Amino acid sequence: MSAFLLGLFRKFSAESDRGLRGMENPGYRTGSFDGLHRPSDDDDDDDLVDIAGATLDFSSTDDDPPLSSGGGYEEYSSSRAAGMNGNGPTKLVDPLEDPLPGLGTYEDFNTIDWVREKSKDRDRHREITNKSRQSTVALLHSVSDAFSGWLLMLLVGLMSGALAGGIDIAAHWLTDMKDGVCLIGFWFNHEHCCWTSNETTFQERDRCPQWKSWGELITGTSEGAFTYIMSYLMYIFWALLFSFLAVTLVRAFAPYACGSGIPEIKTILSGFIIRGYLGKWTLIIKTITLVLAVSSGLSLGKEGPLVHVACCCANILCHLFTKYRKNEAKRREVLSAAAAVGVSVAFGAPIGGVLFSLEEVSYYFPLKTLWRSFFAALVAAFTLRSINPFGNSRLVLFYVEFHAPWHLVELAPFILLGIFGGLWGALFIKANIAWCRKRKSTRLGHYPVIEVLVVAAVTALLAYPNSYTRMSGAELISELFNDCSLLDSSQLCGYKQPTNTSETGGGNSLADRPAGEGLYTALWQLALALIFKMLITVVTFGMKVPSGLFIPSMAVGAIAGRLLGVGMEQLAYYNHDSVIFKGWCSPGADCITPGLYAMVGAAACLGGVTRMTVSLVVIMFELTGGLEYIVPLMAATMTSKWVADAFGREGIYEAHIRLNGYPFLEPKEEFEHSSLAVDVMRPRRSDPALAVLTQEGMTVGEVEALVESTHYSGFPVVVSQESQRLVGFVLRRDLLISIDNARKRQEGVVSASQVVFTDHAPAQAPDAPPPLRLRGIMDLSPFTVTDHTPMDITVDIFRKLGLRQCLVTHNGRLLGIITKKDILKHMAQIANRDPDSILFN
Amino acid sequence: MSAFLLGLFRKFSAESDRGLRGMENPGYRTGSFDGLHRPSDDDDDDDLVDIAGATLDFSSTDDDPPLSSGGGYEEYSSSRAAGMNGNGPTKLVDPLEDPLPGLGTYEDFNTIDWVREKSKDRDRHREITNKSRQSTVALLHSVSDAFSGWLLMLLVGLMSGALAGGIDIAAHWLTDMKDGVCLIGFWFNHEHCCWTSNETTFQERDRCPQWKSWGELITGTSEGAFTYIMSYLMYIFWALLFSFLAVTLVRAFAPYACGSGIPEIKTILSGFIIRGYLGKWTLIIKTITLVLAVSSGLSLGKEGPLVHVACCCANILCHLFTKYRKNEAKRREVLSAAAAVGVSVAFGAPIGGVLFSLEEVSYYFPLKTLWRSFFAALVAAFTLRSINPFGNSRLVLFYVEFHAPWHLVELAPFILLGIFGGLWGALFIKANIAWCRKRKSTRLGHYPVIEVLVVAAVTALLAYPNSYTRMSGAELISELFNDCSLLDSSQLCGYKQPTNTSETGGGNSLADRPAGEGLYTALWQLALALIFKMLITVVTFGMKVPSGLFIPSMAVGAIAGRLLGVGMEQLAYYNHDSVIFKGWCSPGADCITPGLYAMVGAAACLGGVTRMTVSLVVIMFELTGGLEYIVPLMAATMTSKWVADAFGREGIYEAHIRLNGYPFLEPKEEFEHSSLAVDVMRPRRSDPALAVLTQEGMTVGEVEALVESTHYSGFPVVVSQESQRLVGFVLRRDLLISIDNARKRQEGVVSASQVVFTDHAPAQAPDAPPPLRLRGIMDLSPFTVTDHTPMDITVDIFRKLGLRQCLVTHNGRLLGIITKKDILKHMAQIANRDPDSILFN
Repeated sequence: MSAFLLGLFRKFSAESDRGLRGMENPGYRTGSFDGLHRPSDDDDDDDLVDIAGATLDFSSTDDDPPLSSGGGYEEYSSSRAAGMNGNGPTKLVDPLEDPLPGLGTYEDFNTIDWVREKSKDRDRHREITNKSRQSTVALLHSVSDAFSGWLLMLLVGLMSGALAGGIDIAAHWLTDMKDGVCLIGFWFNHEHCCWTSNETTFQERDRCPQWKSWGELITGTSEGAFTYIMSYLMYIFWALLFSFLAVTLVRAFAPYACGSGIPEIKTILSGFIIRGYLGKWTLIIKTITLVLAVSSGLSLGKEGPLVHVACCCANILCHLFTKYRKNEAKRREVLSAAAAVGVSVAFGAPIGGVLFSLEEVSYYFPLKTLWRSFFAALVAAFTLRSINPFGNSRLVLFYVEFHAPWHLVELAPFILLGIFGGLWGALFIKANIAWCRKRKSTRLGHYPVIEVLVVAAVTALLAYPNSYTRMSGAELISELFNDCSLLDSSQLCGYKQPTNTSETGGGNSLADRPAGEGLYTALWQLALALIFKMLITVVTFGMKVPSGLFIPSMAVGAIAGRLLGVGMEQLAYYNHDSVIFKGWCSPGADCITPGLYAMVGAAACLGGVTRMTVSLVVIMFELTGGLEYIVPLMAATMTSKWVADAFGREGIYEAHIRLNGYPFLEPKEEFEHSSLAVDVMRPRRSDPALAVLTQEGMTVGEVEALVESTHYSGFPVVVSQESQRLVGFVLRRDLLISIDNARKRQEGVVSASQVVFTDHAPAQAPDAPPPLRLRGIMDLSPFTVTDHTPMDITVDIFRKLGLRQCLVTHNGRLLGIITKKDILKHMAQIANRDPDSILFN
Repeated sequence: MSAFLLGLFRKFSAESDRGLRGMENPGYRTGSFDGLHRPSDDDDDDDLVDIAGATLDFSSTDDDPPLSSGGGYEEYSSSRAAGMNGNGPTKLVDPLEDPLPGLGTYEDFNTIDWVREKSKDRDRHREITNKSRQSTVALLHSVSDAFSGWLLMLLVGLMSGALAGGIDIAAHWLTDMKDGVCLIGFWFNHEHCCWTSNETTFQERDRCPQWKSWGELITGTSEGAFTYIMSYLMYIFWALLFSFLAVTLVRAFAPYACGSGIPEIKTILSGFIIRGYLGKWTLIIKTITLVLAVSSGLSLGKEGPLVHVACCCANILCHLFTKYRKNEAKRREVLSAAAAVGVSVAFGAPIGGVLFSLEEVSYYFPLKTLWRSFFAALVAAFTLRSINPFGNSRLVLFYVEFHAPWHLVELAPFILLGIFGGLWGALFIKANIAWCRKRKSTRLGHYPVIEVLVVAAVTALLAYPNSYTRMSGAELISELFNDCSLLDSSQLCGYKQPTNTSETGGGNSLADRPAGEGLYTALWQLALALIFKMLITVVTFGMKVPSGLFIPSMAVGAIAGRLLGVGMEQLAYYNHDSVIFKGWCSPGADCITPGLYAMVGAAACLGGVTRMTVSLVVIMFELTGGLEYIVPLMAATMTSKWVADAFGREGIYEAHIRLNGYPFLEPKEEFEHSSLAVDVMRPRRSDPALAVLTQEGMTVGEVEALVESTHYSGFPVVVSQESQRLVGFVLRRDLLISIDNARKRQEGVVSASQVVFTDHAPAQAPDAPPPLRLRGIMDLSPFTVTDHTPMDITVDIFRKLGLRQCLVTHNGRLLGIITKKDILKHMAQIANRDPDSILFN
């Protein structure tokens, strides 16, 4: 086993280093541009997937484009050249005849062209539909093609649900492992171990003889300071071991597996390419290290990473279907659905998951994707339920059932919780970003393993003595949400028993009662836990282990909410005759539900950090299942969002996107400035004129010289240098591949050959070398705007159509070009940020 | 009262006739184009609102544009001319100096320009933000502006919720009125009347002495054939009276109040203008006639019309806020939210309502609208609940609580129900469209009142004898959804009592039982009701009364589902040892829930008719509140959609949109054909060249002659006739208003004056009349595509950006123009439909 791991480690260490560098160093940009000359060996099939599985010669400087057929070229050329390229003279060899691999695909860290991808898919679909009228086999193919999306969704749902179930079970087991071991089999967790036990009362069930804590096992006694210290040490030992394993595995095999993954997935969904970010190695390592990280007791959750895991599943399963393997836009539709699946399995909230994907993550979310995400989210939720990891056949993570309605007066504390959530959210984002920036810019970032170990040690050291921090985040939240019944043995329900039993009526009545000894202890512990969680989460999120933010944020809010709830309850108990409580809170009645306050607080804090609104309320609604409590939740989330927005419009994910310099065009923010396209386009007034190709008259040598002397990723083609009337647009990558290929394969193509973009043969001297015809690789429908177009409209066009670049004309003449990066830089400039913080193209 | 009504009737009869003609006659098109020359007297404030409130001289031929200030011009001009128009010579009078009313607004039955509207709003917002830095008052204004959207949503929610509550109460009362009258006060409905009664058992409560049926009141006895006949006749009388009142009111005051309104709202949301469709008269009349139509016993529901009512509320409330009054795009955001409110109050399902708006109705649904619709839907739902029209403090229309889980085997009948729903949906759409087409094309359409009376008479005549058709649709569905308990006195629960009480255990056990006499009777009646409902709904939907389709569709499905459910139950009871039922359906167990089948059937039929999926499942989920039943619902709706789609891709709303020829660009359908922009654009190859203006050199007379000789709604401006290089685009309406105005107010502007679109003064002979400078009304950033752009991309651009027209260029020269109508005609041609069926521009 260890030999195998070592082998793997060696094999991929080079790869991982590259990946880490790419994600961390601002200097990567140069490398990215240098790489533009080298057509990658990978077929586009491997986009996004094969960081670790890729061959080691990825970084070689081999300039030969392999000549094997396949790849996305056929579709691309047929989409653009159909009907306009067929009637040229046949003696000129056309690059279209032999599709070149790599033509029309994307480099790593580049942005896809949504319009082209969707057009490709429509062409493919049209072809299948046309063929389906001809034969039965083709008809069957057409039907299977139509249903492949649904089948894929089913598979994504099943796989993600199963993985989530596995993660839950494993994390539960390892978390209990920190505490002790089951004597009848170390693979049982605490609960399973005690199932067979005879002690069936609630109190005794936790302490069945089969389950031994480490202290007990070492010292032999279950009491005493020494036992406690041994247990303490073992707890720290396991926490360190788990976190060490997690960070080492991440560093060694899949650097992309760290963090929550949601910022990167947002960027990928907006059209960015990060090869290997959703690959199989990331999936395997993220799944394993997620279990380890959660079990290590660090202040992190598994919800965000589950979205990443689901997206990995979806991306890998996409390879089963040509439709999705070969089309970056279609694949992103599947990934949007997968994001919904992730939240669906994380919380058992399928509708909330779909809305989360719609509101928070997705960029392009057509209705078809809505249906499919809903389907996939349901399948995943039911798969998870049949695995039944929580052992209670509940779908949801925190099942809550409240009995008492809330009163209008209570809106005041709910809004107070919203303000707290908003403040904490804004503060957390600022602190976390400052810390992450420090990590990037100082030597701290060079020691990720040590950082994780130190944080894990501090967490374990401080968390163990306090029972509310010792338990896992999910357990804590579950306990805080819980409504106290009379039989409840929890410390949080340590109320004084009513002296007069007849007063409260019989049975399970839940009337407000005075706080007792147990409750006061619990409140102190909770207050300490609150401060601890607030501080430790800031340094934890962003470390090189998988770490979600949902659970820690919710825990902070739930603690604050519960504290306020108990406070309100006591206030109502002792002042039930005051103006505020009179009329709805008589003595002996159950009027305040502290669990509801915890829930509202959790929603408020999560809302403050992520700025979710509808999806958050719907997730909470699915947890309680009652419309009753939507209004408090809504009030708190809205307040929280408004308060947090007052300190900065960005949620934590957007902040991390900006920190990492991803080229993400935020669809929520309006472009407020009044600049025009002419202010943003390149070349600027002082710059040299735009590098353009003419549709005829340039030689291969001239074109090559032009390409070499610039670093643009594409060149407009004009009628002539004088008229500057626009004909089309050619991508640098496609141009280089085609010329290289033509030089190798086509006889007579030399530097003096003419490059021709027209569809008729040019008039040439009889002894001239045969021209190189490149109309096929030219985009004949480039997007243009006029120089007077306001930038708000231009930004809208970029967002809605998913453009990479747009040409600027004035009175029909080509004037310049605007790329997505130009827009992002312009926006950064307006916001007084460093425009060079946008790293990738 | 009657005199008042008569006066109103006279005042608006001319209007109503116009409206009816406009909606019905294909010949309206000519009128619409003729009207293009006449700038309407209305300020754009009244767009969409004032069909009935408008002045009677709407159809006058007054050519003078009123000179009063106000209207949308300021924003429009500032948006386009800012920064590029200020430095011209000041002695030339500029049309921008005095904003003209009507400039930049829209004619009735025209399509709005989304890009321009949104740009206008951003300019307005930018101005407010800039000002807010200067003074406290401006800052307060800025804050109030930011919150006005939320305030508007609150008001929409409150008003719609209150109206829905009123409609519910009134409809309940009038429905009972058909049956009898309360002796202690005619304003009590049956239930309220008997609340004070002493008979408290369930059976007796329905027959309290205070409530007298009409037969009883007339004959004096409660039994006998004569009493029955008298009650029968009174039932028919009331039905005829209510339906007569409904159709007369609609015809007299608000012709737009008929139908469900959803097709028109979809079209309006996509950017079409129908003045008065969401006006106050439509609101008042629709509310009143909806109550009457529902009470008349016709086979129609109030759910669709409630969406229309909510949209009317929103549109009227928009007038309180300048931001929304003056901007068609912003107003449509509010209307999208109002559609969510409508469904929210119709079913008590706020989340389902939001998804309905997103999936079914809306065209442009940004995230901000998602939050706001959710807020408004919640407010409305809670307003409705505090009104408590159903008297059970339930939010939802059909509250259901099932106890038994479903088994995997049951998926087969659920899918069967899906197939039934799909088949019925497809059949219903075809039959209903055929009937409506007949109504439009034959003399039938000339007698709407008689049609309604005949249908009402037939409905009443056939419905009365059968208790399941006599009750209202909502009651019927509620009864069918209901799960039988042992104490249930309903005929549907007429099972044989278990012979051996010990067999079934004690209490309220719900074990499967053999069907008894009562159940068999109920089944026969249900079967007859099914056939009756299926037939009568086809002729009812589309009559000139407010009519929703949700309830009748659900009723059909619920009956079919209940029948199948009872069948399954009996099958299971008698064959519980067979292979299918063995293992999960032991004797004495409760394994089949017929109510669940009814629910699944209702969802399937509604899905087949409307092709809703996610929103439908979520609405149903909100009714039951359990994730448990989502899978059956999902299976049935999906099957239903697929089956129905196999017979035709259009849902009932899209079919009605096409029937009426509205210019609606379906966002769900992909454009499948491989044509290019050059195939669709005007002028065609054989046509004369495109009518263009040159940026200088044309005189006012020449421009007027050009405008007169064509009927285009806009003209491109080029550098010169030779170069055809594009400068901008001018709308016909703006051009005419500006020239007319300049001739009146600006000295020296005569037919020989030059029209100048450049920003510098042209070189002119010293004795020439002063030029008319019109750069300000020119759109300097017209959208262009190249002639080689595939139409699928062009259609995508039109949809996503909400364009009205797009110019086509070839190598930088202007070639032609594509309008939304051209695209719709092209699509109709491809689908082998009459391209002239798209009526409006």
